[in-house]
Order: sequence, then C-alpha cells, then structure tokens
Amino acid sequence: MSKPAIVLLSGGLDSTTVLAIAKAQGFQPYALSFRYGQRHSIELDASRRIADAMGVAHHVVADIDLRAFGGSALTADIDVPKHNSAADLSDDGVPVTYVPARNTIFLSFALAYAETVEASDIFIGVNALDYSGYPDCRPEYIAAFESLANLATRAGIDGARTTIQTPLISMSKAEIIRTGLDLGVDYSMTWSCYDPSAQSTACGQCDSCLLRLKGFSEAGAEDPVRYQAR
Amino acid sequence: MSKPAIVLLSGGLDSTTVLAIAKAQGFQPYALSFRYGQRHSIELDASRRIADAMGVAHHVVADIDLRAFGGSALTADIDVPKHNSAADLSDDGVPVTYVPARNTIFLSFALAYAETVEASDIFIGVNALDYSGYPDCRPEYIAAFESLANLATRAGIDGARTTIQTPLISMSKAEIIRTGLDLGVDYSMTWSCYDPSAQSTACGQCDSCLLRLKGFSEAGAEDPVRYQAR
Repeated sequence: MSKPAIVLLSGGLDSTTVLAIAKAQGFQPYALSFRYGQRHSIELDASRRIADAMGVAHHVVADIDLRAFGGSALTADIDVPKHNSAADLSDDGVPVTYVPARNTIFLSFALAYAETVEASDIFIGVNALDYSGYPDCRPEYIAAFESLANLATRAGIDGARTTIQTPLISMSKAEIIRTGLDLGVDYSMTWSCYDPSAQSTACGQCDSCLLRLKGFSEAGAEDPVRYQAR
Repeated sequence: MSKPAIVLLSGGLDSTTVLAIAKAQGFQPYALSFRYGQRHSIELDASRRIADAMGVAHHVVADIDLRAFGGSALTADIDVPKHNSAADLSDDGVPVTYVPARNTIFLSFALAYAETVEASDIFIGVNALDYSGYPDCRPEYIAAFESLANLATRAGIDGARTTIQTPLISMSKAEIIRTGLDLGVDYSMTWSCYDPSAQSTACGQCDSCLLRLKGFSEAGAEDPVRYQAR
C-alpha cells in the first residue's frame, strides 16, 4: 500500500503540479483546501475538480476566516493590483497580496490532517523564485516549520518524522509547467487569476495571470485556460 | 500608549490568568478565541464575558473546524474520560483529549492577528507541569514556534521580533490561582469543565474539574464556580 501524504491544493497551477509529483513519487494523496474568505472561490471549485480527476484518497475543504484579522488584497475589499508596479509592493518589499501568516495557518491544518491519517509527508507548492517577496515561501521558513512539526505532534513524541515536501521551491514557472506536462497534468482544470470579477475566463492582466502566461511561453507550451479578449 | 499583545483566551482558568498577567505587565490585550467544534461552547460564552469584564481592546472569535480531521475526545463523539485512569492515555502517554496540532493552529491564527494589529507579543497559557502529556505544551515546542514566527511574517523581514509569552509554563495550578487572585481575577467567570452535559454547574469529576479543585485547595482558596451535587 502506498504511503499517505497531505497535499495542500489551492486549485492553481503550482499546487496541482505538486499533487502530480506526489502521485508520481508513489504517495497516496490526501488533498487539503481552504475556504478562507478569498474573493475568488472559483479556485475552490477548481480544487474540487482537480482532486476528483486526479484520484486523491480524500479531499477536505477546511473553513477558516482570515477576514477577522484583515490585512490583504486577497481577502479584503481593496483593488487587486493589475500589472507589476512599485505600487504593488509595500515599503518592505512584501506584495500587497500577502496574507498574514497564511502558510503557517495552512501548514498547521495540514499537520493536524497528517496526524489524523498518519501521514509523515506534507506537500506544499511554495516557490522561492517567483514569490520571493513572501516571507513564508523561503526555504528557511519551511525548515523552521518542519522543526516545529517534529516537536508539535504525537508523532514527534513517538519518534516519527514529519517532512515538509517543497518540490517546486527552486523551479521557475516554466520548469514547473514542463514538469507537470511531463506528468500528464491537465492545466485546463487549474485557475490562477486573482481578479475577482473573472468568471470562466481569466483576466490575463493580474500579476498571477501574467506570471502564468510568461511561464507557458517560456515552457514553449500553450496555456489551455481561456483568457478574456484584450 | 500601551503596547498591543495577542492573548489566547479559552474562557478557562489558565488563559484568564494569562490575560490578567498581560494587563499587569502593561500590555493592551487583543483577545483571540476559537470556535473549533468543541462540544463545550459554554467555554466560549465564558471567554466573551471575561473579555468584556477585563476590558480587552478587541475580542475575535475565529471559526475553525477541526472536526474535519477527527481525532480527539474534545471534538469527536466519544466519551470524555472521568477521573484519571490508564485508559485516558493512549499507548504513547498522550491524553485522549489531545487535539492534533491544536496549539500550532491557535498560535498560527494569533500570529496573523498579531501581524494585523502590529503586536510583537503573543500570550498563551500553556503549562508544562499539569499538561506534560501534550507535545505542544513543552517549552521546546514554544521556542520552535517563536523561531518560526520570526521567519514567517512581514515583521520578521523588517527585523521586528515576535515573542511567545508563556507566563504559566512552569507554575503549578495552585501558583496560577494564587497569581490570578493577587491580580484580582474573578474566577467565577471562568469555565474549566470538560463534560459536555454540564450547563451552568461544572461536573466536578472530569480531569479538568479535578485539577482545578485540587489547585484551589492547594492555594487555600475557594473555587467560586458552582459544582453539581455529588
């Protein structure tokens, strides 16, 4: 029987690629997604389709409400930035779309889930290149969470190890896409657009769409997602 | 103006004492409680009364659903243990009331809240003596979370430090109670009973009630909470 692993699945391109990698490594994936007051719940719908199509053992959508704390363009009522510009970074170089402590919260839930299904591996699609402005996407952050995980849980007391798997951490977007295509990922199911008004077609203009389109272009592949006419 | 601090407030005796300590140290407390599928929501009602009576700057009750993962007597439909017995510990000596990764999840939310209100201190009422069986109540666990916090957030990038304050970590229950009484804590507002059938009177028989009663006895004080006739 294959080993269980938790895979954080947002419904975007990166986490879907991570799910394919976990499967290719022989893990039995348990997918975990969050309803956290994000404005684009279309991502959650995508995560459900992907979990279903890629045959996960189970898919949990956990409800958490980060809006109680405020603080980010992805959960609050401020404009999502279009195009890259200096205005999209706060004074300390952190993108305005940064959600306070988000990956810490997501990984904490993954840890609870891992303990419940006795998984010793947690997969997360963080990337230190394209998201270098996010403090909780850095390798030293991931290492610190792994240390914490091995002190936090019953498994830690029993001497079992928890590993935070970050297969994308040093890949470019093009490398991520090439990896996924090699593994047969159907990227038409994934959703990356940050624009809350976008429905079945992506805006093609927000940071996330631009990064994705650039990645497909550099990978020499066509993005199967539909974009609004520009 | 006093410095903001996040105080994790369950509505129990320990966290209420911690709130009093944070205030005595000159912090402006922001209280954070959780609705996490616990069977005794009477604790949450207590947290609201306490937050109100003790004049916190703000009280957030965050919704999270740990039931999605299963795994503990406090959130699942299994009997809450009465009295201490070998049956209350699993094979590895961890109490059956342990919730997977609970403190990690709670501290993660506290970290998000701290970042939002620009607090550099998070108070949590963990105790390494009375709850020695819980992996996430150990000092080394708290130190690991503090390290993580200082890598996880925007504040960490800016060079600001986050401190996890655990004033109760090496106190006995009697010492906690004496400390709280010295600070004028009204313990009649607090709720400790784990028995879900208990309403306005505590059962007096579950582990939590017994520990509390022993603490008051050793502190030479009377517990103002009402107990069911035995």
